[in-house]
Amino acid sequence: MDGIRTLMGSGLGVALTKDGNPLALHFIMFMPSIMGQGTVEQQGEWMGRAWSGEIIGTYAQTELGHGTFLRGLETTATYDPSTEEFVLHSPTITSTKWWPGGLGKTANYAVVMAQLYTRGRCHGPHPFIVQLRDEETHQSLPGVTLGEIGPRLGMNTNDNGFLCFSHHRIPRTHLLMKHSQVLQDGTYVRPANDKLAYGTMVFVRVAICFDTYRQLQRAVTIATRYSAIRRQSELVPGQPEPQILEYQTQQYKILPLIATVFGIHFAAQSVWQTYNDVTGSIHDGNLDLLPELHTLSCGLKALSSSDAANGVETCRLSCGGHGYLASSNLPRIYTTTTAAITYEGENTVMWLQVARYLIKSFREARQGHRLHHSVSYLTPRPASTHALQTNLSNAALVEAFRVAVSHLVGEVAARLQGQCDSGMVFEHAWNACSVQLARCAQVHIRYFTCEEFLSGVEKAEVSEATRGVLMRLCRLYLVFHIIGNQGDFLRSGALTPSDMTTLEEELATLLAALRPDAVSLVDSFDIHDRILDSTLGCWDGNVYERMFEEAKKSPLNQKDVPDAYYKYLRPLMKASL
Amino acid sequence: MDGIRTLMGSGLGVALTKDGNPLALHFIMFMPSIMGQGTVEQQGEWMGRAWSGEIIGTYAQTELGHGTFLRGLETTATYDPSTEEFVLHSPTITSTKWWPGGLGKTANYAVVMAQLYTRGRCHGPHPFIVQLRDEETHQSLPGVTLGEIGPRLGMNTNDNGFLCFSHHRIPRTHLLMKHSQVLQDGTYVRPANDKLAYGTMVFVRVAICFDTYRQLQRAVTIATRYSAIRRQSELVPGQPEPQILEYQTQQYKILPLIATVFGIHFAAQSVWQTYNDVTGSIHDGNLDLLPELHTLSCGLKALSSSDAANGVETCRLSCGGHGYLASSNLPRIYTTTTAAITYEGENTVMWLQVARYLIKSFREARQGHRLHHSVSYLTPRPASTHALQTNLSNAALVEAFRVAVSHLVGEVAARLQGQCDSGMVFEHAWNACSVQLARCAQVHIRYFTCEEFLSGVEKAEVSEATRGVLMRLCRLYLVFHIIGNQGDFLRSGALTPSDMTTLEEELATLLAALRPDAVSLVDSFDIHDRILDSTLGCWDGNVYERMFEEAKKSPLNQKDVPDAYYKYLRPLMKASL
Repeated sequence: MDGIRTLMGSGLGVALTKDGNPLALHFIMFMPSIMGQGTVEQQGEWMGRAWSGEIIGTYAQTELGHGTFLRGLETTATYDPSTEEFVLHSPTITSTKWWPGGLGKTANYAVVMAQLYTRGRCHGPHPFIVQLRDEETHQSLPGVTLGEIGPRLGMNTNDNGFLCFSHHRIPRTHLLMKHSQVLQDGTYVRPANDKLAYGTMVFVRVAICFDTYRQLQRAVTIATRYSAIRRQSELVPGQPEPQILEYQTQQYKILPLIATVFGIHFAAQSVWQTYNDVTGSIHDGNLDLLPELHTLSCGLKALSSSDAANGVETCRLSCGGHGYLASSNLPRIYTTTTAAITYEGENTVMWLQVARYLIKSFREARQGHRLHHSVSYLTPRPASTHALQTNLSNAALVEAFRVAVSHLVGEVAARLQGQCDSGMVFEHAWNACSVQLARCAQVHIRYFTCEEFLSGVEKAEVSEATRGVLMRLCRLYLVFHIIGNQGDFLRSGALTPSDMTTLEEELATLLAALRPDAVSLVDSFDIHDRILDSTLGCWDGNVYERMFEEAKKSPLNQKDVPDAYYKYLRPLMKASL
Repeated sequence: MDGIRTLMGSGLGVALTKDGNPLALHFIMFMPSIMGQGTVEQQGEWMGRAWSGEIIGTYAQTELGHGTFLRGLETTATYDPSTEEFVLHSPTITSTKWWPGGLGKTANYAVVMAQLYTRGRCHGPHPFIVQLRDEETHQSLPGVTLGEIGPRLGMNTNDNGFLCFSHHRIPRTHLLMKHSQVLQDGTYVRPANDKLAYGTMVFVRVAICFDTYRQLQRAVTIATRYSAIRRQSELVPGQPEPQILEYQTQQYKILPLIATVFGIHFAAQSVWQTYNDVTGSIHDGNLDLLPELHTLSCGLKALSSSDAANGVETCRLSCGGHGYLASSNLPRIYTTTTAAITYEGENTVMWLQVARYLIKSFREARQGHRLHHSVSYLTPRPASTHALQTNLSNAALVEAFRVAVSHLVGEVAARLQGQCDSGMVFEHAWNACSVQLARCAQVHIRYFTCEEFLSGVEKAEVSEATRGVLMRLCRLYLVFHIIGNQGDFLRSGALTPSDMTTLEEELATLLAALRPDAVSLVDSFDIHDRILDSTLGCWDGNVYERMFEEAKKSPLNQKDVPDAYYKYLRPLMKASL
């Protein structure tokens, strides 16, 4: 199993299980749940068997009728002290567990989230280790209904599954009891702190950032290489057709995405670093940094998954019709990447989590509290420091971002307060402002990414020549996103219309300046042809030969006249209709 | 064949050939090409047989190495006066015809675009009717290599194909000779006017608008109905989970897309109407309106296909994870719709065509020429009429659009001129401004759509109550897109920051006001469940039951323990690795 662990844990995994991996959740959810939420005894009981592959698990939380809202889960686990067992039950069709990867046919165990009932009281969702299939025959156990949920947009080599229980009994000790416990007599012991579970979510969300950024790397490598091979149209009449990468509109599609790869990298790396730095102090009960970490991981998960999915699609479309061919691999990279927008915390919900933290911080700052690093700029400052930037240096642009987000947050906070003052319940007022709240969150996380990109490049241990290229990419990222959000900068007075014109001209200059480095930059990602798996993106550039070779393999091409001709087409054509 | 014609020509087609129709190009490209580009004799020779289905054709233009740039095609048709034949040949791998629907296995004829050579001179691409397969055996003819191009992101029930010729001979009379001719002796007779071919392109591009808008209708029907069934989270703690359509962020995703359906409808209808009005005068040689029509059809094709594809994807994502399931049908609606972004004129190329017309018109206006309707606002006006709007009425917002686009066009025209003045070749200057040029085009076509939406609703023959709802949708469309492009309005002075705040508040009010009409609006599209083909969007709202029923049909669910368990999984699990 060691080899499999290595393969699945690295970028190589995608070359083996091209469209989703049924063992993925075993490694990234089942085992981490036991480690993060099981007692030392429970870890001892299960981890060895899981590690050796003797049992294969998944993580069953989402239900047919319940996703993001954990407290809405309907599956029940009712403690029966007479036998010291929990009785798992799915009371409705909507309580059916639905979506977990590997659940349909692969896994024989799962960590199942269910509402814990003991002594007639519900204590909310808790994790249970549940055996689903016989370890010898692999047949589903009595009381357990299991199946696969049917075809999907992508990830079809994963057997995403459904699961319902009919009064299925498991031992009391299968409740993962690191945080809360149920004693033999049914006494519920609550966790010392209910925020401890956040840690695992931070881990999973940052892991998603790294995953989506790898997908974008692949897509932008394919698009860049193809754009250097493909020739089209005339730049100057009578001249040969240029590489399409010469067109500014093509550079505009691709170069900011190369920058995005680095932007996500530096931002996720920074959150990851903080997470590891504070994990020790979290276990010592110091939870101060958890809300900040939680917010950043929510926001970066949303930013990276939507940037990556949109970026992959931009890459696909930048290859024209040929990007639509499966053999380009861009369709599959897209269908895989876009899944991250809705899984593990749907992005809109993530943005609203970030917004909640922003509004809370903004209010605290007004009350004189000191704010954490990522939001410290929300602290009120004397008006003079808000003055218009006199230059457009990187530092000035980052400061302009701070002014723009502060202004946005201030405006929506005032609107929220106004609605509450006029008698609206806070929750309704929140909902009535939520489009703007989500926007605040997006611009805040964009600002965070710009700042981390900049400081990441400044600190990177690379040659000065390389730093020069990276700095240009970072500048492109800053300018690109300021122009994209220009309304926020203009309305807050952070930048003027004439600054914007200057930045637009600089954008054109940056695209031209980065164009010669484009191919080297994606080559530096060093992705093997087997992992790219693309006729358009192969290292040797033999695009058209490879497309032709791939087409010949199509099942339809095994006969000149297909059977369907005799069956359907000929009768139609000869019928003289 | 009559029944088939009816079925394929209507919305019903999608319910029959769910993922692309191999006969589509026969009807929408092959026959129209013969009608539009063949002589009366040629129409007589081919249309009867095509109409009865005795022969099935497609349209082969795109090559492996050549898409949008027609003049770059490499396939040659060389006239041989000794036999009065054209010799069709594919000199390189990149000259292989690639992509035509139905070409792989279905069609036995095609209209082929090839570079016409006669008497040693090339006269550019011309259309030829070419037989590809034996009418009795359906075998591909000698000298013709045919096949299917392999799997794609979508439309996999269409046999998109490839085609190469090896010195394949066809009669001289197979050149479609309505516009240009080659006489028996090889004399080339050029067309009276080389803009006549634009007519067919206008027809095809407007047809694409109608097609993409139907796809968006389906997607938004599914998303709206599901949002009224799905319940999630808490709006107010302790209250039952509300329908997700109660959330402002969900309304913000869906309601502007309902408006978009109407926006595309009215704008495309208007271009269609003009096209039909002027078709007569075009044939009489009056080509005045052709550039305007050509530009609008290019722009609307780009706007409608990208709005519809993005809109369908927004609908899919608004359904959370369940939108990723094939049984929701949103994946297939997306993969079909997004294809329109790159086919029949790639969108970026379309935008640059529009920009060319804008810049030309802008310059002509500066020279005192009178401009056509859609761009007449580019005519210089006294500064007073450019004054800030004093109210935010619909008329004022449309006028603000005019000011914003004029300003954008003016700015980029000046930049273009500046670069030429500093010695740059026009084409290079054009390329160096093309990101901004494309933006001008986008905002111009958005403005056109807003204006047509507004006048369409004003003129529609509906009850005043219905007009009220449509007017609110139109207002939402205006406000939504002004906020989305706010930088252009602020920089041009068309609107002020405080106008923008007012519009943002109005947006919130409009979403709340339209929410009660959402389900009725999509019900009014009157799309049958068989055409929606969606577990999430069915009329009766039995979402979860249908999802479960569909899942049960999955091939993997026909056995509890799959064969793959014995073959792969058991050896792995029992190996004690």
